[in-house]
Amino acid sequence: MIAGESLLLTDLYQLNMMQAYYDHGMTEPAVFELFVRKLPARRGFLMAAGLEQVVDFLEGLRFADDEIAFLDRSGRFTREFLNNLAGFRFTGNVDAVPEGTIVFPNEPLLRVTAPLPQAQFVETRLINFVHFETIVASKAARMVLAAPGKRLIDFGLRRAHGAEAGLLAARASYLAGFAGTATVLAERRFGVPIFGTMAHSFVQAHDDETLAFEHFAHARPDGLVLLIDTYDTEKAAAKVVALAPRLARDGIRIRGVRLDSGDLGEHARQVRRILDEGGLPEVSILASGGLDEDQLADLTRQAAPIDAYGIGTSLVTSSDVPALDCAYKLQEYAGLPRRKRSEGKATWPGRKQVWRRTDSQGRIVGDTLTIEGDRQDGDPLLRPIMRDGRRLPDLPMLDAVRAHAASQLLRLPDALRALQPMTVPVAIAPALYALAADCDARQAAMPG
Amino acid sequence: MIAGESLLLTDLYQLNMMQAYYDHGMTEPAVFELFVRKLPARRGFLMAAGLEQVVDFLEGLRFADDEIAFLDRSGRFTREFLNNLAGFRFTGNVDAVPEGTIVFPNEPLLRVTAPLPQAQFVETRLINFVHFETIVASKAARMVLAAPGKRLIDFGLRRAHGAEAGLLAARASYLAGFAGTATVLAERRFGVPIFGTMAHSFVQAHDDETLAFEHFAHARPDGLVLLIDTYDTEKAAAKVVALAPRLARDGIRIRGVRLDSGDLGEHARQVRRILDEGGLPEVSILASGGLDEDQLADLTRQAAPIDAYGIGTSLVTSSDVPALDCAYKLQEYAGLPRRKRSEGKATWPGRKQVWRRTDSQGRIVGDTLTIEGDRQDGDPLLRPIMRDGRRLPDLPMLDAVRAHAASQLLRLPDALRALQPMTVPVAIAPALYALAADCDARQAAMPG
Repeated sequence: MIAGESLLLTDLYQLNMMQAYYDHGMTEPAVFELFVRKLPARRGFLMAAGLEQVVDFLEGLRFADDEIAFLDRSGRFTREFLNNLAGFRFTGNVDAVPEGTIVFPNEPLLRVTAPLPQAQFVETRLINFVHFETIVASKAARMVLAAPGKRLIDFGLRRAHGAEAGLLAARASYLAGFAGTATVLAERRFGVPIFGTMAHSFVQAHDDETLAFEHFAHARPDGLVLLIDTYDTEKAAAKVVALAPRLARDGIRIRGVRLDSGDLGEHARQVRRILDEGGLPEVSILASGGLDEDQLADLTRQAAPIDAYGIGTSLVTSSDVPALDCAYKLQEYAGLPRRKRSEGKATWPGRKQVWRRTDSQGRIVGDTLTIEGDRQDGDPLLRPIMRDGRRLPDLPMLDAVRAHAASQLLRLPDALRALQPMTVPVAIAPALYALAADCDARQAAMPG
Repeated sequence: MIAGESLLLTDLYQLNMMQAYYDHGMTEPAVFELFVRKLPARRGFLMAAGLEQVVDFLEGLRFADDEIAFLDRSGRFTREFLNNLAGFRFTGNVDAVPEGTIVFPNEPLLRVTAPLPQAQFVETRLINFVHFETIVASKAARMVLAAPGKRLIDFGLRRAHGAEAGLLAARASYLAGFAGTATVLAERRFGVPIFGTMAHSFVQAHDDETLAFEHFAHARPDGLVLLIDTYDTEKAAAKVVALAPRLARDGIRIRGVRLDSGDLGEHARQVRRILDEGGLPEVSILASGGLDEDQLADLTRQAAPIDAYGIGTSLVTSSDVPALDCAYKLQEYAGLPRRKRSEGKATWPGRKQVWRRTDSQGRIVGDTLTIEGDRQDGDPLLRPIMRDGRRLPDLPMLDAVRAHAASQLLRLPDALRALQPMTVPVAIAPALYALAADCDARQAAMPG
């Protein structure tokens, strides 16, 4: 299954519209912005992510010969158009909010300025990247806030929606503060630290649980974590205590045990006691099994003696909110601001900037959305990312993005740190109201 | 972004366990089964999907030299193990429920019988494929049932979780009865019919809505569908009526209009009246915009004059149920049945078969889950799919799978067709209870 690198991974209407734009010479500069219309339930903020994949995609944008041949065989497109596709590249500009930044509704995460066919064509994949990574980074940030001081590890690949979702969820959650992932490819591709324990099947395949632990310990002596809930968690913890001195004679140290079922807080207390009384106070406890941020918050309140959490499904599918109401909309074409006015989906026109005000401790006070060039109090969030189709040299590496995200979470006011948050108002500047009114007046005067 | 074809797209623990299995010579035949533990809220059935991707994956299973070199550099594995990986292939058997079949909790969708390291290693990607396609096919089937006689089209790529999710959602929804997708690559890869209209940006980029329609019509004269909600839906419908005779003189026929916002039922009635009174009764109405099966059912009850629906986010993310509680568990190793007994996650041991009883109209009456070879009333659901690592010749093509799925939906009893369904009980045969008791007794007698 190779899907992500084909430019045919797009909506047919993008190609249809491109054909029409070329036919009618509509290749003037267009400005599109990508934004979220409103926050979903229980989300007080979003954490922007996916920009690096967007830049890679735009820099590598080209149709392969076999893809053009496929479009030709379909009979849908003119020869002239297909010739245009052969040389089709992204030559435009991108401005964006840096990855790891806290963002709110109506704030552009990304602005593309390019000849109309280019800026139009990239819509589908740009949303696909930014939507998914933003939703996972935002979910991960909630988990990081719910379990202060704990190591969180992404275990979600198997229940992620396909290959790319699994890989990008590892990146997006690491960016937001996770310690790492179980997904091996994420280390190779993004340098995300990887962690692995053992499965129940390993224990089941042995006739004896202690023998299973011993076999695994000798094969995997470094960073050894034993899974102890296959049959009876507390009995298995006692087996770990009994086994530890034998392993120690072979120079093998047990680093942790993993719980994966039942009442995790209660089992952790029992197991902690068994390990401590058995002379293993340094053996850590990793818990997993259907966890989400609410359960993490509950275990934090209980002060459960759990050192690390493996989190899968709820993270990689953002299970309570698997999609955002986001859009990529034309804001300007051929020098004129544009605005969609569909019911419930009207947009603010023009090129926009977001200004963020913070208090003396650096905490977010509020944002102002306005047109580009209309200076407001605070700091602007959108920055130049690509010019003339090439990335600017200062795009940060993933670890720098992760540090930025951590500092952003520190800047969240308490009302937004809660799992049931209040929302921060984004103020609309007078200049933007005025531009929208101009747009509407112009549209009302149209002959059509 | 290429993710899906690398064998490093797996959990680290799979490689860790393989190293341990090789170290200890544990390469006897193992039997794993993939099943869903319980139905999520509001689901009365699931539709099995993803098997073709599993077979492709297993047939193509091999580590690339650069992947082995990466694992070598990590320092985690022995030279002997890495040499084993170079020749690692899938040589086992697969039995499975055919794609498009209705299935219930605890019923194996898939059984893998292979040397333990092979059967273990494939876990992550097998779940990743079957879980996602099954969840989308099941969601799509609900939509098909909610909108009888309507054409449903997948518009979800942009909000799918990454590239592969978008592509496989097009396949899974077509399999379940959708008419097609907007995703171009799905036609090339799977032969799924593709459909495309136009975006609001196309209208906005023109100074005049009628001119936008005219430009699009001349560039895209075949299967022409005009988007009419950018500014005012009914006014735009009147513009379509005025434009139609001019286009007809150029031999261009308008096939449809698309609504994408507001009260779709109410707009459809207004637009239908405008089109009919304007002499365009043959122009169809396509509606889209945040639709799910409940809204489809509501529009069906209203008898809204809508001919086709474009459905995105709720389909491709299965938004109310973005994940299933599914598992791939060891059922037998070295000839002995195995059983996990973790709290709330105990499994039925052994190789299993599902027998389905139907009434005289072919409607599902009930299923019996039992051990392989224990013949029950009805028809067995699991069939041989791969032997010795190769697919059997009669794996159906996608259109045959789609026909099978359609006949399965006809066989649903009324109680399961409802959006708020009753669940069908799956009976457990006495032979399976007996085997589970044997397993527990053996485990209780273990020395560990």
